[in-house]
Amino acid sequence: MKLTNRDLVTIDDLSNPEIKGLFSLADEMADATSEQYGVCKGKIMASLFFEPSTRTRLSFEAAMHRLGGRVISAVDIGSTSLAKDESIADMARVVGAYADIIVIRHPWEGAARVVADYAGIPTINAGDGGHEHPTQTLCDLYTIRKERGTLRGLKIALWGDLKHGRTVHSLIYALARFGATILFCPGRGLELPEHVLKRLDTEYKGELRRYDNREQEPDSKLFPIDAVYMTPTSPHQLAMLPDISLRVELKEGVDALYVTRLQRERQAPASDQKELGKRYPVVDRRLLKGQGFEKTLVMHPLPRVDELACEVDSDPRSMYFKQAAYGMPVRMALLSLLLGTKEVALPEGHRSFAKKVQYPVYKRDSAVKCSNAKCVSNQATETKYIKPEFRVVSNKPVTLRCTYCDHELRPGYVASAEWHQGKLENKKYHRADSHWARKIKPENLIVFASEEEAQAKQFRPGHYSR
Amino acid sequence: MKLTNRDLVTIDDLSNPEIKGLFSLADEMADATSEQYGVCKGKIMASLFFEPSTRTRLSFEAAMHRLGGRVISAVDIGSTSLAKDESIADMARVVGAYADIIVIRHPWEGAARVVADYAGIPTINAGDGGHEHPTQTLCDLYTIRKERGTLRGLKIALWGDLKHGRTVHSLIYALARFGATILFCPGRGLELPEHVLKRLDTEYKGELRRYDNREQEPDSKLFPIDAVYMTPTSPHQLAMLPDISLRVELKEGVDALYVTRLQRERQAPASDQKELGKRYPVVDRRLLKGQGFEKTLVMHPLPRVDELACEVDSDPRSMYFKQAAYGMPVRMALLSLLLGTKEVALPEGHRSFAKKVQYPVYKRDSAVKCSNAKCVSNQATETKYIKPEFRVVSNKPVTLRCTYCDHELRPGYVASAEWHQGKLENKKYHRADSHWARKIKPENLIVFASEEEAQAKQFRPGHYSR
Amino acid sequence: MKLTNRDLVTIDDLSNPEIKGLFSLADEMADATSEQYGVCKGKIMASLFFEPSTRTRLSFEAAMHRLGGRVISAVDIGSTSLAKDESIADMARVVGAYADIIVIRHPWEGAARVVADYAGIPTINAGDGGHEHPTQTLCDLYTIRKERGTLRGLKIALWGDLKHGRTVHSLIYALARFGATILFCPGRGLELPEHVLKRLDTEYKGELRRYDNREQEPDSKLFPIDAVYMTPTSPHQLAMLPDISLRVELKEGVDALYVTRLQRERQAPASDQKELGKRYPVVDRRLLKGQGFEKTLVMHPLPRVDELACEVDSDPRSMYFKQAAYGMPVRMALLSLLLGTKEVALPEGHRSFAKKVQYPVYKRDSAVKCSNAKCVSNQATETKYIKPEFRVVSNKPVTLRCTYCDHELRPGYVASAEWHQGKLENKKYHRADSHWARKIKPENLIVFASEEEAQAKQFRPGHYSR
Repeated sequence: MKLTNRDLVTIDDLSNPEIKGLFSLADEMADATSEQYGVCKGKIMASLFFEPSTRTRLSFEAAMHRLGGRVISAVDIGSTSLAKDESIADMARVVGAYADIIVIRHPWEGAARVVADYAGIPTINAGDGGHEHPTQTLCDLYTIRKERGTLRGLKIALWGDLKHGRTVHSLIYALARFGATILFCPGRGLELPEHVLKRLDTEYKGELRRYDNREQEPDSKLFPIDAVYMTPTSPHQLAMLPDISLRVELKEGVDALYVTRLQRERQAPASDQKELGKRYPVVDRRLLKGQGFEKTLVMHPLPRVDELACEVDSDPRSMYFKQAAYGMPVRMALLSLLLGTKEVALPEGHRSFAKKVQYPVYKRDSAVKCSNAKCVSNQATETKYIKPEFRVVSNKPVTLRCTYCDHELRPGYVASAEWHQGKLENKKYHRADSHWARKIKPENLIVFASEEEAQAKQFRPGHYSR
Repeated sequence: MKLTNRDLVTIDDLSNPEIKGLFSLADEMADATSEQYGVCKGKIMASLFFEPSTRTRLSFEAAMHRLGGRVISAVDIGSTSLAKDESIADMARVVGAYADIIVIRHPWEGAARVVADYAGIPTINAGDGGHEHPTQTLCDLYTIRKERGTLRGLKIALWGDLKHGRTVHSLIYALARFGATILFCPGRGLELPEHVLKRLDTEYKGELRRYDNREQEPDSKLFPIDAVYMTPTSPHQLAMLPDISLRVELKEGVDALYVTRLQRERQAPASDQKELGKRYPVVDRRLLKGQGFEKTLVMHPLPRVDELACEVDSDPRSMYFKQAAYGMPVRMALLSLLLGTKEVALPEGHRSFAKKVQYPVYKRDSAVKCSNAKCVSNQATETKYIKPEFRVVSNKPVTLRCTYCDHELRPGYVASAEWHQGKLENKKYHRADSHWARKIKPENLIVFASEEEAQAKQFRPGHYSR
Repeated sequence: MKLTNRDLVTIDDLSNPEIKGLFSLADEMADATSEQYGVCKGKIMASLFFEPSTRTRLSFEAAMHRLGGRVISAVDIGSTSLAKDESIADMARVVGAYADIIVIRHPWEGAARVVADYAGIPTINAGDGGHEHPTQTLCDLYTIRKERGTLRGLKIALWGDLKHGRTVHSLIYALARFGATILFCPGRGLELPEHVLKRLDTEYKGELRRYDNREQEPDSKLFPIDAVYMTPTSPHQLAMLPDISLRVELKEGVDALYVTRLQRERQAPASDQKELGKRYPVVDRRLLKGQGFEKTLVMHPLPRVDELACEVDSDPRSMYFKQAAYGMPVRMALLSLLLGTKEVALPEGHRSFAKKVQYPVYKRDSAVKCSNAKCVSNQATETKYIKPEFRVVSNKPVTLRCTYCDHELRPGYVASAEWHQGKLENKKYHRADSHWARKIKPENLIVFASEEEAQAKQFRPGHYSR
């Protein structure tokens, strides 16, 4: 298996067999770290961190050094030329001429995609705003696999802030790809957003069951499950599902409890934060005495604040510092594969559990823009280079997903490029949520941000335009 | 001599023979710098600077590179995850999984101790607030030894700000350990604090003699000595002492004049600074023409401001740039010893001049906290991990010294864990400065921050509680 | 050819043959980049950036890594000891003891000269305020030579902001040295300053012809040439000059169009910037369709903002990303030459086209100071070390050029050190712009900042003092 010159922008850039191949190389490197010095001799990694993250940056840099490679770093946006209104596309092309691989963290969602497109060398996304952080997901999966021996058929509980922090969403999709059963245990007001649940349903074809945990006593010893997701590859579990109860669910034992902290930095008003912080669920010794947790791996992407009590640190089930340490072999394996200085045998007999749905690309010019203000496609310096780009992920109602940041939007008005009998007087637009809209084939779809746009483009109001 | 996996948090972590062993390795490395490339091949040093210090950081990083090792750096607290309220204990554990050795500078006093306790790899303190900066002390000692040929029986004058900047206090204790005679020449209002003088007395058992230099004319050519300290290992000097005068003292010649700058950043109001700055004593060509300075090494830890005139730079007695340069072999030797890639023969026939006093540890739970607001044990993020810890350094009056930052405090009330005849009604507390308090054995000592605390713990006011 | 232990502070530190020798080494290194790993093994480069510049810094650091050398970096003035009022001369001496070569960027003009004077190791100026940026000039020249095959007899158009940004002025002088014909195409209000034009005239002895482009229509397709400069080594061109017109000039074809961005950061009021920005000339596809541009190299030092349209990026004439990439071999060659790990055969049969004029140094004490507030010689921390130093570049009127920053100033009053008949009553001063001043030999010249200074020095008003 070769990954030479590939990028890692989202976890979906790697197939399940590729992830497993990468993990077997990581195993090999972990067992003989000192022998890897020289694997990337003469190679240069550019470490471009436009947002603070000591942990991730030092992990990548140490991994490159362990491989005998070299590192050039730009750590702070204030110390870069970007202050002079340079586009990251230009920056990517210049750094691409100096280094052999780029690791980038940037506050704009989709920024790593733009860098990968322009740099001309392999690019790794080390976090693009709230969008993706695929090497964190790899470390999480690697920890579970390393400690459980497999990634198949596991039961993983996700705890805390499931609303913000889409890195947790990436993990959810990745777990679904490997056939996991996922228990969602959010803090109040921090439940998983509808669009993630919907995506689990439509793209990963799993079974979703919700629980009403508002009736649970606040001091109940019961584990506060909000919903359970099961992939379709676990048929006997599905059969059991109708009779399942919270207690039954837990009796089988949870393989891993993945704790997250309140994502303050992605949130709005300080007052709400305080309130959410107060009610934020804490994982402590008492909780881990509960039923089903006897062998549970306690995980956390770190840094933690108060949601994971220090008293748990010495518990043999605590994996979070090991999880951080596993970042080293995982990133070493990734760097050497993308740089082409290593290859591994593809694991046999594996296939993806969930087949990734390929949606049609919407390519027409339009005034429709991504609705995410943090999306790279909405930044003044970048619009010179990149145009909004979407995939049509649904037609009931018409829904576009931004190629850069994965945010979804619903345009107000639509038309079909194939108007009735080819007559121009039939060139009409309709409301996007009308039943008429569902009949347009994706390849013929035209979207409008407003009626004004439609009319300016010579379309007339159709029957379903109001 | 092996120092593998040891930490260097305070200069006291190294015995006198270990310091001399380290210096002989530094000599060896200074003589053949280019041959050291490869000594630390494949090793990674994490350079964590949470306070600005180009000089120290670049010196450490260059030393590691000269040894063929690698470096990962986090330079600015703003660019780290710590902004997210992470504890340095957590940070230490994570970085400990990436690197082979940590060099840390941090504004909290005692921070390096916490990092050393949690990192699991050797840790070097590159300055923890105003507390310690042991490699600076090593460079200072190495310079004197290199240029004078010995560390025994020297006469060292300390000049300038002896009040703030406890790195100078560390140097004083280290000099005392090597049997030096120390002349204190402070600026007005910048005299050595009482607790340092007391510690010289009680722990290093030397002889201290004070002079009243207020009577000196402001423009006197006389060197403004404030006090002289002599270690007990110089008996013939002690004998001379009663008749000594300033002039006699100087006639013998000063081996080194150690100049310090006004520690503005550790001080309070700007107005006072201005006033102190005006009266700050300047070392210039004229002063160095004085009696006793014919062969004196002029030293300074740098950076300097105005206290050391540029006109002195070309004088052959000026050592300060050489002193900075000696940082290279000293730090190379230290890194390779702690990493275990080098060992040296222990110098024979050497012993510590001053035996370090071991004080009993106060381990009981108590509301008593370190009185130093900058102490790591008082930081919100750290109290989850670490409890206040003290040593009982005196019982007249009862005095505790913080294990982290070395600040001393005197609790208000005390009791004995061995109450009279074991009767609970004898469970009484007393004022800590009462003569009764002196009778409590250190292992039985109980301290209280207040009468309220004592009473809450079921103690009743004793005879000496008012 | 050896350049061991030389500095590169201004482009004039290298002769034309040396530049060509450096370029032939760069060619060699570009053809076999991976074979250079080891050329600087064990050497340390200190990368000291007191102003933001990711591009230049990463380029230097990557170059050093490609050579197998090591790098220590200080990126932000806030994270250095300089905040403590240390002089850069002191800093240079300390870093000079840690590293083998220094690369420095600093906002003070002339700072690199001071560092070079005190560091004791080779020093490369990576930009000192608005003064010089010689490696940028080297990359520019290298790009032209690489793509055109020669540096002789080229026609280069400079576009945009020719007023600010003296790096463009450095390029102009360098082009003149290689015998180029230079077309100046400034934005309105951004014309080349008089002192540059004058210097081209007096030092490079070329022929200058100006055009009045105010009469051109704003939307004229005509290339807005403001002036043309020709070196004296192109005699047949000089002969043609009297009949030349803009159109004729362009018919011969432009070898390179060098685009610059508006130097906002060197300018004063924001309101003016906005106005200048609006009228700033843009290089786009339409302009490049013009006559004479068929084979023109489009160059830009980057970062760009809007003055160079993205639509041009894919044009085969666009050189700006290649130009950035050429920074790698050029800087690799430079580092290895200055470190003495490489030498090259001097190219034969080459000589400088323009002989550099050597002006006499003005060494007397005087109250005259450099008039440039950003000059290193005017900084409080540096005046302890360095005195103002000037060269006498003209005596009609008397003009001094600062040795550090190249700014010129005209003192108000002058005298001759050789007073008439040696009589003290003839010790008189005169106005510097009087015809009498022209008679003073440079070696006898005495300058005064004011009449007061002259009188304080016992000079009396002369006949031409009013």
